[in-house]
Amino acid sequence: MTSNQSLAQRLLAGDRRALARAISLVEDDRPEGWELVREVYPRTGAAEIVGLTGPPGAGKSTLIGALTKARREAGRTVAVLSIDPSSPFTQGALLGDRIRLSEHFLDEGVFIRSMASRGALGGLAEAALQTALLLDAAGREDIFIETVGVGQAEVDIIDHADTIVLVLMPGSGDSVQALKAGVMEIPDVIVVNKADNPLADTLVREVRGVLSLANLERSHEGAARAWRVPIVKTEATSGAGVAELVSALAEHRAHILARDELAARRRRNLRNEVLAIATSRMRRRLEDELRDDPDVEALLEQVVQRRLDPASAASALLERTGAR
Amino acid sequence: MTSNQSLAQRLLAGDRRALARAISLVEDDRPEGWELVREVYPRTGAAEIVGLTGPPGAGKSTLIGALTKARREAGRTVAVLSIDPSSPFTQGALLGDRIRLSEHFLDEGVFIRSMASRGALGGLAEAALQTALLLDAAGREDIFIETVGVGQAEVDIIDHADTIVLVLMPGSGDSVQALKAGVMEIPDVIVVNKADNPLADTLVREVRGVLSLANLERSHEGAARAWRVPIVKTEATSGAGVAELVSALAEHRAHILARDELAARRRRNLRNEVLAIATSRMRRRLEDELRDDPDVEALLEQVVQRRLDPASAASALLERTGAR
Repeated sequence: MTSNQSLAQRLLAGDRRALARAISLVEDDRPEGWELVREVYPRTGAAEIVGLTGPPGAGKSTLIGALTKARREAGRTVAVLSIDPSSPFTQGALLGDRIRLSEHFLDEGVFIRSMASRGALGGLAEAALQTALLLDAAGREDIFIETVGVGQAEVDIIDHADTIVLVLMPGSGDSVQALKAGVMEIPDVIVVNKADNPLADTLVREVRGVLSLANLERSHEGAARAWRVPIVKTEATSGAGVAELVSALAEHRAHILARDELAARRRRNLRNEVLAIATSRMRRRLEDELRDDPDVEALLEQVVQRRLDPASAASALLERTGAR
Repeated sequence: MTSNQSLAQRLLAGDRRALARAISLVEDDRPEGWELVREVYPRTGAAEIVGLTGPPGAGKSTLIGALTKARREAGRTVAVLSIDPSSPFTQGALLGDRIRLSEHFLDEGVFIRSMASRGALGGLAEAALQTALLLDAAGREDIFIETVGVGQAEVDIIDHADTIVLVLMPGSGDSVQALKAGVMEIPDVIVVNKADNPLADTLVREVRGVLSLANLERSHEGAARAWRVPIVKTEATSGAGVAELVSALAEHRAHILARDELAARRRRNLRNEVLAIATSRMRRRLEDELRDDPDVEALLEQVVQRRLDPASAASALLERTGAR
């Protein structure tokens, strides 16, 4: 396909319009999109991928804005991928105190893309992972991925980052409880944003308490020289603490590079990615067949009537679709 | 299978040991467990299922203890299914101020079971759903399901409850933000626990603000006579507010019964349950085949070496397993 090939070439050359077009193809689940990723995949792996997660309103987007500024000043190209429906990136980033993000919209060195996380169930994670590969292939040196997270760790796009940053703010009691209870995984870096809030120091103390427990457990496991998760206080709106965050990110990268952890992480992530794509395709295929098949409705009706149990109905479905 | 049949009969007769044995079979993914659910399924559907979710430490377990007491005083039998790894039920419920829960351990009319939510990925939801059916078939009139949740709504066991209660406490800022941002679904009832805390009223005001916005949106959709989510203040440890919560649960049940919503909910939930079981089985089968097949490792190695992209690897896997 000549036109597709030239799209790949333009994308690999860093052309923004080609990149935008390629992402749309992937988002729309078009075969050309998948073909394109296949083509450019050998040219991926150079980007540094940082994932920022945390509750809505903690200031992830403003922080990404500040990090982007710092990376641009260091002469690096940046891509932002936002999968947080409550993010100003997703909403256009043009209103109120969000105006500061819009400066990056005019900078050729910054590519911003947001994806809605509603309705896409499964398909979204798939599209986001493919998008990250496209950004990487297009030569973006730093990729920031923003996701909303306030709890249970799922197999998620955030797991595909090299460094995971959890952004909290005073009032993030639930996240601290989730960390403490072990239902949220310990990230690589913790940011306490809105550090000018009088309750910020209380939050820092609580988080430090959780981390020292976690470190204790980890040292029992014998990983004495393991990474010690730093707590960085920031005021994203004024830029205070951003330099420290930049340092913390660089230190984490140096740490995982020195111990060959980056390769191990990426190996594990790619393995999960392959599985996730395969599973999501199987599910989609199943749902497609369900939609088209009137007998399936009859089967489900039997379940509703309590004549056939859900597991037996599932077996019957799998047999119908030939996925025995 | 004669012995299995008699297990089903004993379970249907309400025998606690038979129930415990049946749940273990389901948890261990034994064929007899699935067979048993198949057998008793026609006798399910009578139980009233209430799901309580919320951040760790909000007091869900203590609240379930208080609700259990109220139900027992009304002469009803109760089952508690806890899928919160941080729950005192999961941890034995015998330490500190948790001693009050242990009184129910001695009551024949109360059946308590906890499941770990780690490591089981997918398999856990499946086992939990089957367990709920077993509890129902065993004649438990009220089933309380406890899950930890501080954010994104997933296809989850909690969705299979007739009534969903979100339990918050002062400090639950993240959950309020998640509700506000629309990343957490509005539940049927909201409890503000630890109402003796001086910040409880602030939390109630915040939640009320979020709900009035949500109601506004809902009335735009034309559902003028929709359920108005009540906010109930409780002190689970003293029992204050528990009577109000009992009333709120009864009102919600009356509401969904009157508008035929209970049947619609259960229909939707059963449909999702069938799909979830089918998907989880497909994924497990895929993982089993991966484990046994050395060629698959070679395939994944190609992905790691950036020679084959993840989506093409997924396609290759699906072809190998015959699930084209």
